[in-house]
Amino acid sequence: MKKIKVGVAGYGTIGQRLADGVALQQDMELVGVAEFAPTLAVKALFEKGMPYDLYLVDGADKEAFDKLGILVKGTFDDLLDQVDIMLDAAPGGVGAKNKVIYEKKGVKAIFQGGEANSVADVFFHGYANYEKGLDKDYLKLTSCNTTGLIRTVDALNRAYGVEKVAITIIRRVADPGDYHRGLTNALQIDKAPSHQAVDLMTIMPEIEATGILVHTPVTHGHIITVLAKGKQKITKEMALKVFEEHPRIRVVSIDEGFKGNASLFKYARDLGNPRGDMYEIGLWSDSIVESGDDIMYAINIPQESVTIPETIDGIRAACHMQETREEGTAKTNEYLGIGKFKGMFK
Amino acid sequence: MKKIKVGVAGYGTIGQRLADGVALQQDMELVGVAEFAPTLAVKALFEKGMPYDLYLVDGADKEAFDKLGILVKGTFDDLLDQVDIMLDAAPGGVGAKNKVIYEKKGVKAIFQGGEANSVADVFFHGYANYEKGLDKDYLKLTSCNTTGLIRTVDALNRAYGVEKVAITIIRRVADPGDYHRGLTNALQIDKAPSHQAVDLMTIMPEIEATGILVHTPVTHGHIITVLAKGKQKITKEMALKVFEEHPRIRVVSIDEGFKGNASLFKYARDLGNPRGDMYEIGLWSDSIVESGDDIMYAINIPQESVTIPETIDGIRAACHMQETREEGTAKTNEYLGIGKFKGMFK
Amino acid sequence: MKKIKVGVAGYGTIGQRLADGVALQQDMELVGVAEFAPTLAVKALFEKGMPYDLYLVDGADKEAFDKLGILVKGTFDDLLDQVDIMLDAAPGGVGAKNKVIYEKKGVKAIFQGGEANSVADVFFHGYANYEKGLDKDYLKLTSCNTTGLIRTVDALNRAYGVEKVAITIIRRVADPGDYHRGLTNALQIDKAPSHQAVDLMTIMPEIEATGILVHTPVTHGHIITVLAKGKQKITKEMALKVFEEHPRIRVVSIDEGFKGNASLFKYARDLGNPRGDMYEIGLWSDSIVESGDDIMYAINIPQESVTIPETIDGIRAACHMQETREEGTAKTNEYLGIGKFKGMFK
Amino acid sequence: MKKIKVGVAGYGTIGQRLADGVALQQDMELVGVAEFAPTLAVKALFEKGMPYDLYLVDGADKEAFDKLGILVKGTFDDLLDQVDIMLDAAPGGVGAKNKVIYEKKGVKAIFQGGEANSVADVFFHGYANYEKGLDKDYLKLTSCNTTGLIRTVDALNRAYGVEKVAITIIRRVADPGDYHRGLTNALQIDKAPSHQAVDLMTIMPEIEATGILVHTPVTHGHIITVLAKGKQKITKEMALKVFEEHPRIRVVSIDEGFKGNASLFKYARDLGNPRGDMYEIGLWSDSIVESGDDIMYAINIPQESVTIPETIDGIRAACHMQETREEGTAKTNEYLGIGKFKGMFK
Repeated sequence: MKKIKVGVAGYGTIGQRLADGVALQQDMELVGVAEFAPTLAVKALFEKGMPYDLYLVDGADKEAFDKLGILVKGTFDDLLDQVDIMLDAAPGGVGAKNKVIYEKKGVKAIFQGGEANSVADVFFHGYANYEKGLDKDYLKLTSCNTTGLIRTVDALNRAYGVEKVAITIIRRVADPGDYHRGLTNALQIDKAPSHQAVDLMTIMPEIEATGILVHTPVTHGHIITVLAKGKQKITKEMALKVFEEHPRIRVVSIDEGFKGNASLFKYARDLGNPRGDMYEIGLWSDSIVESGDDIMYAINIPQESVTIPETIDGIRAACHMQETREEGTAKTNEYLGIGKFKGMFK
Repeated sequence: MKKIKVGVAGYGTIGQRLADGVALQQDMELVGVAEFAPTLAVKALFEKGMPYDLYLVDGADKEAFDKLGILVKGTFDDLLDQVDIMLDAAPGGVGAKNKVIYEKKGVKAIFQGGEANSVADVFFHGYANYEKGLDKDYLKLTSCNTTGLIRTVDALNRAYGVEKVAITIIRRVADPGDYHRGLTNALQIDKAPSHQAVDLMTIMPEIEATGILVHTPVTHGHIITVLAKGKQKITKEMALKVFEEHPRIRVVSIDEGFKGNASLFKYARDLGNPRGDMYEIGLWSDSIVESGDDIMYAINIPQESVTIPETIDGIRAACHMQETREEGTAKTNEYLGIGKFKGMFK
Repeated sequence: MKKIKVGVAGYGTIGQRLADGVALQQDMELVGVAEFAPTLAVKALFEKGMPYDLYLVDGADKEAFDKLGILVKGTFDDLLDQVDIMLDAAPGGVGAKNKVIYEKKGVKAIFQGGEANSVADVFFHGYANYEKGLDKDYLKLTSCNTTGLIRTVDALNRAYGVEKVAITIIRRVADPGDYHRGLTNALQIDKAPSHQAVDLMTIMPEIEATGILVHTPVTHGHIITVLAKGKQKITKEMALKVFEEHPRIRVVSIDEGFKGNASLFKYARDLGNPRGDMYEIGLWSDSIVESGDDIMYAINIPQESVTIPETIDGIRAACHMQETREEGTAKTNEYLGIGKFKGMFK
Repeated sequence: MKKIKVGVAGYGTIGQRLADGVALQQDMELVGVAEFAPTLAVKALFEKGMPYDLYLVDGADKEAFDKLGILVKGTFDDLLDQVDIMLDAAPGGVGAKNKVIYEKKGVKAIFQGGEANSVADVFFHGYANYEKGLDKDYLKLTSCNTTGLIRTVDALNRAYGVEKVAITIIRRVADPGDYHRGLTNALQIDKAPSHQAVDLMTIMPEIEATGILVHTPVTHGHIITVLAKGKQKITKEMALKVFEEHPRIRVVSIDEGFKGNASLFKYARDLGNPRGDMYEIGLWSDSIVESGDDIMYAINIPQESVTIPETIDGIRAACHMQETREEGTAKTNEYLGIGKFKGMFK
């Protein structure tokens, strides 16, 4: 079988993880990653022995790489000549500029949540609208919160029908290692409705969604509370059943020790996952409560890694590697080792 | 007019503010405050020149006070002999023990949220059930989050009728000056439903309530998002109208600079309010969104001071100083200067 | 006696407190404060009933003030026409531009730490070099950390002689109410030596100083550890004696409950100080240790208010209100109520 | 060659890492780890497929393990029967109780910093006093801060002679995943001198040490500033030379992107290190400054993993696997991959 050839633009928090994720797909080949400057992430790549080839985007200071002894394989152009599809994890706004180059080169691309929706043909989520991405040239992934949120809403919707959701996003304000966008002893509120609610409606137009977002001074994963109104009454048991069957949802409880977002980060580290990452979202079984006929629950979004599987689903759709969401997501899950823990305990 | 004589048990975060609040009521007399040890709060009282008389509870180390030169006016017994009603702000659980003494002395009392409901005849909120407190001997105040939350739900309910609320409490984990119950770089979740939702149902049994609480590492005021289902559709304008008319709700906006809970704390400091306190809760006008027929909004709870007015309302009810909630809360508001800012801008 | 007429440019964190401090000086008259926009600080001033007159700097949007109903007394020019001296608390860099206007108007000025040293004739500290400021037109105050640090080093130096200091600044990264410069779960280090050590040497050229600064995610006061090498051995008792005699140093201990910077902030609130401010620095008696012949100790810098007294000292020097540091600082202390607590306990 | 058989008591933050470290030593065999309850760490071990055998300490609830399907290999006694030496990472104080059992079984042991010094024959550090540990039965490791600190002081001392050090410890207050000992918006100070300075003097009695410790609300590594007085003047170049040669010190700079403790944590994650750990301490080259004849610098202590190499050195000493510190530490470094990056860049 011919492997799909993939490149990654931008080797930051998301780009690194996209590269790692693609490298695990047995039906894909990671051709290389493109960067601008010898950042710490690039230095770590070098210190690891350059498992991925490095290409430089236009305007990069090649000399800075040379001085450190870091091998550069070629230019952005060289990279694009070899790939079927690019995963664009460049800083917000740069993706739109890169798209012009991708079009010229006839290369497909998947953009991350920082870009405007207009950059892409389809606003994409592996579970919610895989089929819409089939054979498309340009996809844009949902952002981290929306990606995790939709996993749960899509699952409830397919099982029972969902009419309306209202969310409260308790957002981690910075990633571990960030110094430029912190918050100190403050909860900061955004104008409502939050873009995540609006984005959910773009992906799932049959559902009405709104929500409020509050930034909090932590780095380890957003928490979202979701109130979902079903087309029928959804009981706690009904919700739990759906969540426990979903490969990309890890149902946890306070009783077993998952006291908050930091527990999930620690657990992923203790599992030996690279970078301490987790692809699954956490969902607390003891947060699920019925509110009249509605159902309410809380989830944890590992913001650094959560979009990786759905992005890889996007490759499968755009390159028509699998026909259906079931097949596409199953392949991604298999190669990323997602959902292996299901049914392991008890 | 005979002034109602009031004592305060426990001179901590709440006790200090209760004393300050009572001292401002022209129809009440603060007889004194009772403490156990020469804490920093007591030292500050001494450094201010002892505006309030100090009494020692049983078992207090009087010598420690003497050594510092802090004048002690008498025993707990001495204090109880002079008062009509005690505001009990002793550490959680101590209030139940104190109640035995209050009963023996024939003194009324109001307990704070840390005590069990069973300590009191009525679980009390100045706006929601003032009349239930009339002539009662023992009241228990709603906790800080519940007090602020009920202000808004009660207001919507009286205006339009409310059937159901679902809340997300983004809880500040510690008060400024606390070292013993902090949280560092973690969001910690409690088992649902949160006690605040349960408490709301106790006070307002006609409403169904549930909610999820997440602790966050900040000190300046909880934020609660509320989703309320009205008996009729409540629009943003309808909600705003009710909130703007409420003396104990301060409607603010992100646009004018209130970016989060720390803005409200800073504003109260800049107003010159003692301790930088605010009696009103903040409510963001730009957080209000309609969710189908439901209404959603976010409020800020200044946890150190928010229960003071409703506690003073409780004195008015228990001692039958005013007959109705309108009269009782109006007097409290007048003496505390609450709501003076209404209509000041524009 | 003719009162010295003072204006304040910039009504932010420092400007508000300078205005409050000047208003307390019985030999000064606060003519007014100048601002650019109707910030929350201006709104709080308005809500308080405009205790200070408000003037608008060039380019200010007067209409925005009018729309809110906030009375504007005049232009920056109008203010300058009435004052002897301006306290410039404009954002860093703006002071240099304002100086051109001050010179044209023949008005003296004192700049805050954010400006370049070159803006002023003298880099000033009330205790360390009061006499250098006599009759000068333009002074620049030391920054908050340097102001507090120098209080202690100057005191040791005058008593025993100091040769060398090495400091570690554990810096609070943002003020309460800041959202734009936070830090989340990180300690951030600056290149050494810290500017505070360099500044100390400018003020006290006979002392060699160096140091390292680390930013920490808190808002309530920097902590500095100081290692001072005396010309003679300075014992713990010798150091303590000097610190306890200094009006602007509050010697505290962990044993009495001052566990850290948040305790001092809370104590100032409980004292009823406006905004919960404190003019004195805290110094922990149980942090003082001898290191061979050197002495080591830790101080707390209340960053929002610590430079106010030394700035007012600067008015006294520049306008030659008092001849000596003893007289000048004593008047400032008297009117600000500094040091009243000395000897109060025990 | 016969491999030394090692057991680990306590599978928490330190115990997990000791097990991982021992498992990498080609001349040691990890027999198993002992625990009390099926904690999240044990669940992660199980989810990884039980790479290490699990034994239960006395009083453990075996049923709880059985119910989860977690295989238990035997009792604590069974484990002790098979090992030459135990690494005791039980909660503070439990080690002393375990020692009685170790003595009865004739098993050597190394205790972590939480135990009293009296539990051991030697207070041990691989670089500072390896030879003192030779053939001893019971060693106690220095705590995390002291271990990292001594690496630098020992290096300077061997090269140039050190007379005196004064340290400021900017302590991270909790580990990632902790909820029980956080701190929120406060810097908390301990009584001086800090125990780390006292411990340094126990290990290196020829040096006088003192210091001040301040807790800060972060989780990613302590920062210590060190002022060292040499027997001769130590210049920045002299210090840097020694630090760059030390395998367990990673010299970094702000310029290359290491802005603080969170950068080092992120870099270790990006390197793909298990759990995102780093064995080396970080030392900022741009923090090194001369203070008269003294030298000052700042280091970063990865608190979760820093004691692992020195503990393994302890096995080598106690079991006389290598004769000298050079040989002992070199073997540990080789198997842990420490210092491989030296000279890699430029």
